[in-house]
Amino acid sequence: MGKDKGSLEKNAERARKIRLIAFDVDGVLTDGKVAWSSSGEEIKSFDIKDGHGMKLAKRAGIIIAFITGRTSSAVQQRADELGVDHVYQGAVDKKAALDSLLAETGLADEEVAFLGDDLIDIPVVQRVGLGCAVSDGVEEVRTRADLVTSAPGGGGAGRELIEFILRAQGLWDDVISKYVSDSDA
Amino acid sequence: MGKDKGSLEKNAERARKIRLIAFDVDGVLTDGKVAWSSSGEEIKSFDIKDGHGMKLAKRAGIIIAFITGRTSSAVQQRADELGVDHVYQGAVDKKAALDSLLAETGLADEEVAFLGDDLIDIPVVQRVGLGCAVSDGVEEVRTRADLVTSAPGGGGAGRELIEFILRAQGLWDDVISKYVSDSDA
Amino acid sequence: MGKDKGSLEKNAERARKIRLIAFDVDGVLTDGKVAWSSSGEEIKSFDIKDGHGMKLAKRAGIIIAFITGRTSSAVQQRADELGVDHVYQGAVDKKAALDSLLAETGLADEEVAFLGDDLIDIPVVQRVGLGCAVSDGVEEVRTRADLVTSAPGGGGAGRELIEFILRAQGLWDDVISKYVSDSDA
Amino acid sequence: MGKDKGSLEKNAERARKIRLIAFDVDGVLTDGKVAWSSSGEEIKSFDIKDGHGMKLAKRAGIIIAFITGRTSSAVQQRADELGVDHVYQGAVDKKAALDSLLAETGLADEEVAFLGDDLIDIPVVQRVGLGCAVSDGVEEVRTRADLVTSAPGGGGAGRELIEFILRAQGLWDDVISKYVSDSDA
Repeated sequence: MGKDKGSLEKNAERARKIRLIAFDVDGVLTDGKVAWSSSGEEIKSFDIKDGHGMKLAKRAGIIIAFITGRTSSAVQQRADELGVDHVYQGAVDKKAALDSLLAETGLADEEVAFLGDDLIDIPVVQRVGLGCAVSDGVEEVRTRADLVTSAPGGGGAGRELIEFILRAQGLWDDVISKYVSDSDA
Repeated sequence: MGKDKGSLEKNAERARKIRLIAFDVDGVLTDGKVAWSSSGEEIKSFDIKDGHGMKLAKRAGIIIAFITGRTSSAVQQRADELGVDHVYQGAVDKKAALDSLLAETGLADEEVAFLGDDLIDIPVVQRVGLGCAVSDGVEEVRTRADLVTSAPGGGGAGRELIEFILRAQGLWDDVISKYVSDSDA
Repeated sequence: MGKDKGSLEKNAERARKIRLIAFDVDGVLTDGKVAWSSSGEEIKSFDIKDGHGMKLAKRAGIIIAFITGRTSSAVQQRADELGVDHVYQGAVDKKAALDSLLAETGLADEEVAFLGDDLIDIPVVQRVGLGCAVSDGVEEVRTRADLVTSAPGGGGAGRELIEFILRAQGLWDDVISKYVSDSDA
Repeated sequence: MGKDKGSLEKNAERARKIRLIAFDVDGVLTDGKVAWSSSGEEIKSFDIKDGHGMKLAKRAGIIIAFITGRTSSAVQQRADELGVDHVYQGAVDKKAALDSLLAETGLADEEVAFLGDDLIDIPVVQRVGLGCAVSDGVEEVRTRADLVTSAPGGGGAGRELIEFILRAQGLWDDVISKYVSDSDA
């Protein structure tokens, strides 16, 4: 792909074009653990701060999508609660899911950011405008990502990416102004 | 707000006036993770030592309240078990919840401590007598708090704040005297 | 109590007299977290290695007991699975539970080891022959314990204490000989 | 057993002969925690990256087996989902389970790798071609293993071992070539 990767400035430039952020789920919005109970329930854990970040992003006009190779009703529940716009489950071929997503939204590669952690995420990480990996993603993904978060999957990586993009677009101060009364700021 | 923040002495002075401690829940009394099961259950984890601290605080005459933006039956169960006096769930506007709490209890801002972790907690952190953040709270909250706990959310932050306030009020030794027989102390 | 605390040699001497090991549960055999689900389930997590250690201790003739201030069917299940001999739940006054345990077993204080983590454990920690605290127990317990484990509650502290006692009694090599074929050892 | 243990080169040589990888479950594919709910459910957590690794190994022609001393429907579910070829539950005598596995598959000791964490795993670790322990396994296992993973149980140890073996056999680049388009690599 020959991307000019790594520099903060280059990534901020990429971030300014982003209109949609897509997330892998397991290992990105979770810590990669899935629990099973003896009666057959599947359980997975999400970070509330990531979720709040997605709401802030949506309020700022950014589209949110999930692209996951697995299928789980827990993911659909979480997506519904957050009002996630596009959810692709069972997407073993993530590139095909990205194609559908671009067709549905009319967006171009460079308007999309994606955050992944494992081998099957590589094709999307390599293709989108801002291809990202979580800090505990596998080496093959991290070395090919434009940006590696400092937080691990399920531990704030999603929020960190959202904040990076909103700051690059000059929208962060506006987002937090709702909460802050800083005569002293 | 122009608070004179930070010094231990100043915070102990603030703590001496506190008659009610209010806690955000997710990310403060939990580690910010919420689990979903395939059958639609929502699961969250609380720290037993925080809970024991709340019982100690109540025994010492301090009122305990929860103010959370989310709504969850797990939170109500935990509150019931601990005998928490005031529970505000679904409080997206936390300042309004604080107003209700003050009206109900007849207390003033300076008699209230609050422990939060995310952006929506800022208005309450900035207003109450002792505005606090957990160690893993977002930067915007930590920098505006009078006191940042050394423990993270769900990992003893609640207990730490309770103990700080009871010590400042000279009540801690009395609380533990029930358990200790220290001829050697 | 004026115990001569702390030295490894002194603790090994104490350990040689132990015939029963009693454990607090939350924060000692678990990491102190209790999860609640939206349908009212209470969930807590135990360490398999602690459990295996209890089986090894029983095989070596040591009695195992649980003394917990809370009541939970999960604890009874875990106790049943491990064949724990004595289970005291809802034991808010842990000294009274210890009295019952000594009456039932005919043992003396000095033949009992206890592992705790919080204030309500102090009376028992101070009284038994080998009073122990987990590494992440509250300071008031740790400073009064004969022995503080290097592992935290729920992270191997129980196994560590069992192994310390079995080694002091010269039983450890016998325990592991069943598993090891060390012509090279 | 007099194994010439430890060196990376020697382990790579051993790895080249491996045609089956067997895993203990609790403490190896999980972090060793088992949760119980008040209604009697048993819950355990697996790492998605380990599971993906097993799929990659199978695609490369390696047989996967589980050998666990406990019995749990969660393990069977996880095995079914991953298409694990051989599952031995309730295998308190792991050597006997290994015998059955060798008989079923027609493989020899040196064609098997095994990853364990606790005392009962020692007989198998000592016997197979590549006997391995997780980084947080008990000392008695780690010191007798040919290879100790740098990841802990439930935190990527399984994936790490699979990757080590596939690399030693020269199959890793082929495995990841499916995902990567590296004109720049």
